[in-house]
Amino acid sequence: MTGWVAVAGLGPGADHLITPEVTSALAEATDVVGYIPYVARIAPRRGLVLHPSDNRDELERALAALTMAAQGKRVVIVSSGDPGVFAMAAALFETLEAHPAFAQTDIRILPGITAMLAAAARAGAPLGHDFCAINLSDNLKPFDMIAHRLRHAARGGFAMAFYNPRSAARPHQFARVLDILREECGPDRLILFARAVSTPDERLHSVTLAEARPEMADMRTLVILGNAATRRVGQWIYTPRSALS
Amino acid sequence: MTGWVAVAGLGPGADHLITPEVTSALAEATDVVGYIPYVARIAPRRGLVLHPSDNRDELERALAALTMAAQGKRVVIVSSGDPGVFAMAAALFETLEAHPAFAQTDIRILPGITAMLAAAARAGAPLGHDFCAINLSDNLKPFDMIAHRLRHAARGGFAMAFYNPRSAARPHQFARVLDILREECGPDRLILFARAVSTPDERLHSVTLAEARPEMADMRTLVILGNAATRRVGQWIYTPRSALS
Repeated sequence: MTGWVAVAGLGPGADHLITPEVTSALAEATDVVGYIPYVARIAPRRGLVLHPSDNRDELERALAALTMAAQGKRVVIVSSGDPGVFAMAAALFETLEAHPAFAQTDIRILPGITAMLAAAARAGAPLGHDFCAINLSDNLKPFDMIAHRLRHAARGGFAMAFYNPRSAARPHQFARVLDILREECGPDRLILFARAVSTPDERLHSVTLAEARPEMADMRTLVILGNAATRRVGQWIYTPRSALS
Repeated sequence: MTGWVAVAGLGPGADHLITPEVTSALAEATDVVGYIPYVARIAPRRGLVLHPSDNRDELERALAALTMAAQGKRVVIVSSGDPGVFAMAAALFETLEAHPAFAQTDIRILPGITAMLAAAARAGAPLGHDFCAINLSDNLKPFDMIAHRLRHAARGGFAMAFYNPRSAARPHQFARVLDILREECGPDRLILFARAVSTPDERLHSVTLAEARPEMADMRTLVILGNAATRRVGQWIYTPRSALS
């Protein structure tokens, strides 16, 4: 039996948002590796070994997956959302580049419903026009670069989706992000805080930038800032297809 | 029986990329409306009426769906990819805003695998760092705005995904887009042309900006431009999680 690695997106949380392609890969797998809460979503079964690991171990996890595939195992690396958006797919290719011995590995990336699309769908259509996706974690980039990108995204008239807005390790940074956005976009711009979308803990909350507070976000929150034309209709928030900004 | 409208994303083409949530909604529907090739993907069955329509009829299609729901029908508006990304969800809310009589309609937006995520997955992980999604169709915005956004996205160091890059109605515009990108990003930046991803017509082709030609794209092509750090490893293209640009 030839081994392989699939990097699979589990979507935001609900089972009904997992693609059949991912479900099939999990059914064929001998081993599942990933961050502890994502591996916890996989039902145990005979013949499947689960390998949960801590969030900071992404390169070790990728190396373990490639090593097991070389031994003939069928390995699924699970990511939340989509594996190509601030998740494990890039970490796997970084590892592949650093370890040419694994160059011939059979690799597949299986897309998933990323958090911004799930959050947008629950809120209406705030990403209905051009938008950016920005990872606010500064683990892998300096805050100055985040600020630079926020300003260009704002001046380009983009809506924005923010991943990893806030953590205990950097509680003040998201306050600086909101200050920059208020400076660039004004107080009336709509901002959506979507927490744990599609899970029992789901909570959506939308306010103007003037009303936005850092504590409205945590690491389970996906934040979407509208563009200048984003508006409410009833309970919904949407961005028209025509550009006004 | 109470009527409803669901706006459902069918993903890029393959059935194994349709979420179970969308499949369930289609199983409960009495009526499916949408652009002709998307409705053609829905299997006919007794009790289901298919309403294919032309691509330019988005607001009429949304109004027809709201009207049928008010009559007690269970209506799915089908979109390719994700309904919130350059698709029918925003058109539905525009229609809802213009027709307050439908304000109480039971509406759900069901996310799907949007083309850029499917294309990125087939190519590797080119969207592994901050990125923008830009609709290059100028039906609903002037080209000057597109150019303005391209320059801000480039100067912000974003990777970019381009929807609707080229059509028979505006064959020269994508050449201008490539000129702007070469000017802003230089000749060596990697660009991916991903056509009809997940269908039998799938074709992936990646080159440098110096080598890119407008005819490499058509309206079934999703184009992804890497950021300054995007690179090849074997057959794959990926963008490292660490920021170099």
